Amino acid sequence: MYPKKYPRNQWYVAAHSEDVGRQLLSRWLLDEPVCLYRTSENAPVALADRCIHRQMPLSKGRLGDDDTIECGYHGTVYRTDGQAERIPSQPNVPRACRVHRFPLFEKWGLVWIWMGKPELADPARIPGHHWLTDPGWATVRGTLPMKARAQLLNENLLDLSHLEFLHAGSIGTAKIAKTPITTDFDDGVVRVSRPMYSIDCPPFFTKTMGLSGVIDRGQVAEFFPPAFHITHVSAKPAGDLDESRKCEQKAIHCVTPARGNTTHYFWCHARNYKIDDPEINALMQHGMEMVFKQDVEASEAIEEIISNYEPDHPIELNFKVDAGALQARRLMDQLVAAEQ
Amino acid sequence: MYPKKYPRNQWYVAAHSEDVGRQLLSRWLLDEPVCLYRTSENAPVALADRCIHRQMPLSKGRLGDDDTIECGYHGTVYRTDGQAERIPSQPNVPRACRVHRFPLFEKWGLVWIWMGKPELADPARIPGHHWLTDPGWATVRGTLPMKARAQLLNENLLDLSHLEFLHAGSIGTAKIAKTPITTDFDDGVVRVSRPMYSIDCPPFFTKTMGLSGVIDRGQVAEFFPPAFHITHVSAKPAGDLDESRKCEQKAIHCVTPARGNTTHYFWCHARNYKIDDPEINALMQHGMEMVFKQDVEASEAIEEIISNYEPDHPIELNFKVDAGALQARRLMDQLVAAEQ
Amino acid sequence: MYPKKYPRNQWYVAAHSEDVGRQLLSRWLLDEPVCLYRTSENAPVALADRCIHRQMPLSKGRLGDDDTIECGYHGTVYRTDGQAERIPSQPNVPRACRVHRFPLFEKWGLVWIWMGKPELADPARIPGHHWLTDPGWATVRGTLPMKARAQLLNENLLDLSHLEFLHAGSIGTAKIAKTPITTDFDDGVVRVSRPMYSIDCPPFFTKTMGLSGVIDRGQVAEFFPPAFHITHVSAKPAGDLDESRKCEQKAIHCVTPARGNTTHYFWCHARNYKIDDPEINALMQHGMEMVFKQDVEASEAIEEIISNYEPDHPIELNFKVDAGALQARRLMDQLVAAEQ
Repeated sequence: MYPKKYPRNQWYVAAHSEDVGRQLLSRWLLDEPVCLYRTSENAPVALADRCIHRQMPLSKGRLGDDDTIECGYHGTVYRTDGQAERIPSQPNVPRACRVHRFPLFEKWGLVWIWMGKPELADPARIPGHHWLTDPGWATVRGTLPMKARAQLLNENLLDLSHLEFLHAGSIGTAKIAKTPITTDFDDGVVRVSRPMYSIDCPPFFTKTMGLSGVIDRGQVAEFFPPAFHITHVSAKPAGDLDESRKCEQKAIHCVTPARGNTTHYFWCHARNYKIDDPEINALMQHGMEMVFKQDVEASEAIEEIISNYEPDHPIELNFKVDAGALQARRLMDQLVAAEQ
Repeated sequence: MYPKKYPRNQWYVAAHSEDVGRQLLSRWLLDEPVCLYRTSENAPVALADRCIHRQMPLSKGRLGDDDTIECGYHGTVYRTDGQAERIPSQPNVPRACRVHRFPLFEKWGLVWIWMGKPELADPARIPGHHWLTDPGWATVRGTLPMKARAQLLNENLLDLSHLEFLHAGSIGTAKIAKTPITTDFDDGVVRVSRPMYSIDCPPFFTKTMGLSGVIDRGQVAEFFPPAFHITHVSAKPAGDLDESRKCEQKAIHCVTPARGNTTHYFWCHARNYKIDDPEINALMQHGMEMVFKQDVEASEAIEEIISNYEPDHPIELNFKVDAGALQARRLMDQLVAAEQ
Repeated sequence: MYPKKYPRNQWYVAAHSEDVGRQLLSRWLLDEPVCLYRTSENAPVALADRCIHRQMPLSKGRLGDDDTIECGYHGTVYRTDGQAERIPSQPNVPRACRVHRFPLFEKWGLVWIWMGKPELADPARIPGHHWLTDPGWATVRGTLPMKARAQLLNENLLDLSHLEFLHAGSIGTAKIAKTPITTDFDDGVVRVSRPMYSIDCPPFFTKTMGLSGVIDRGQVAEFFPPAFHITHVSAKPAGDLDESRKCEQKAIHCVTPARGNTTHYFWCHARNYKIDDPEINALMQHGMEMVFKQDVEASEAIEEIISNYEPDHPIELNFKVDAGALQARRLMDQLVAAEQ
């Protein structure tokens, strides 16, 4: 029910584009240490973060002007393709003196990594998220470390009936949970829609969108297994037919397993209104981080139970609203099974 | 020798009465998460602290004026009997949507919990400890968390020869250890008696009882397996036949396994002298806590050895004075075995 | 490749002489708790740090003027040979009431311990290190705790090609790594020599020895399995034939497994020049500690990888310069195998 295996022949988000630069960055991804950096021509690179010689993390070494990494222990020099080109203590460099280079693909402000067989890496399979760099949209983003397995957050994001309770006072209001949902599974994507008509405007929408009273609120949660979500949000005055008054938001959630039962949560939030208003930017930055932290805290509280009480086999009761989450579990199991 | 199993069809102390109120309290007991609270009519309730839906701790939810708990994640509402009465996202509530309610019994200032089969819970089996709420006695109490398995403290409390050494300077004096003891096992209770005649008055008795010089000191340690102790203490001037000058104390020790090798130590201390003296109350509160902390620290030091050196199978040599502790081990083994 | 077994019938350094005194000192060595102290006649003693009665660490007890230890829990009194001579709660003391006394041998400022069969302990097998107390030499010393298995530091000390990279800016300079080495294995000792002629004087030598420009630098790393190293260092102006201008240093490294994957690193550093200069003493104390801390940090970084990524079986590629380290592995395996 709570397996800890993840499919490897898949794209995962390794970092926000802005995280990766000329400083060597160490990050555990799917239980592997990875060293991330950029070449002088701005191309992101990911190498196994352990020198093939004696397992020293390469991230503790030095990045040269020629984009090589010199291991901080015995000075072995690696090229961006992972092949060593210099071993200071000997003239010859064996072909086997190399570390794995993980395929990366940078798009729309995110750096995607492929932890499986490189020959299978096809960037066409990365789901779209163009809003993050679209000039008609304003984006804020952040990273939250989570002491819980990725699955808990993946399922959180597919059951937005929790808004009414976990996020009461910010984006949650009464009657959200009982609004009917539609769940569909299309081409391996799980999609849960909850259109809400004439529902209370949540306090955070008033602050950011300027709406109040009752609104028509749209909410579609999409999960692209194994690790990517888009929550499509829209709001306008109830019954208002003027599309120009409709505010749209895209919450992007990248849920990447780190080490053991810990997870990286890379979040982004794009909106198509008041895009040049720095005050709204700041509100969004802090407001969304607060909301997403509540999701992280709930996941961590549950992790403490399932990893201490009946490890991996808690007794659970599913609700009708869990159709999306259950389909997500099935898809994940299939992805893992297909790799065995 | 140091098994980590505990009998479940037994009463354990879950809390001091004053710990439980209208705030939801989370506490691990015998490796299970438990949520404790009181109804508006003051009745204590203990529910499994994990929502049957997605394992969210109920203690992170909201206690309603009608004594229900609303889960903080998806808003499922539980009655005090553990049955859910509302699932916000659907109209019907399955019978199976319930969490375990643990039988509780509150008596004399303690809240007792039954972690086993509810139909076997018989409050008549709870040992007496009426002094804690008797108007003729004054009580102080406290709770100490302990990073050691319960057994170490249970055995500490049955061998009071350690007073002379571990508690030197407070309640320990010379020659305690070599005073002969009587051990008897009666109706499943282990009882170790050490009557001491014409022995030095310990410093702490001088401060609290006003005694000095040599005294007649009585000490009877009773263990009611699996988790409850009464230490009966008495003192009077040596050879004094005037019973009105005899001071009596009852130290109550509740040793409840928490999670892994950690334990809750709920202690109480009642006396029948100077019961209205706030200064003596304060002395008792701080003095007894200091003494009991020494027991906890000794248990923790031993836990570090047995869990790191030869886990669960240290080589030990028993002394004659250990007859009580060894009988306690046998009784505990029998209680566990009887449940298999 | 990274086994965690250590040979027990061997001498290990338990402490610097100055660490052991009339205060009871607790130290885990090879996964056993040990209590170290000195008798009133200044002889070091090591007893198992757990009372045979109930595993209380003896180090939490009291050292008497007669050199006995009284257990802090129930007052059992142990003599320096480990035999109990008093049990307060009973008149007779069984022969079996004793704790193991580990053979010790103190020499040249170090206290050596024998964790195996006492009858095999032969001090003649302790490697020499007379410089530490020789009046013609000045010594500084320290202790570094290390969260990594001992093997990582043992191998670090046998491949000094890392000076150029890990210790750049202090004792490392360019071209060290590519200077040819000689490795020989003699009588169970691994010896790696790297004579460097006309090489840059490292900054730290300038500060301490007063040398500059190019120098002739000698460096011989000796490993006496399982846990002792001497690094012989010498330096003089390049081509200078006047031996009186030659500065010599002996770095002594004692690498003793503690508990789990942690290690005690006892280091000493002796020099035969400016031996009465307190300023150079201070420079040495801080400078060498800084250098050795870099070795500890590298070992800890590697430990994090090998214990989290592919526990105990990392994929490694050996360089030619690793001949010494590989021979050390073989010798250690043989020592462990011989004890099975």
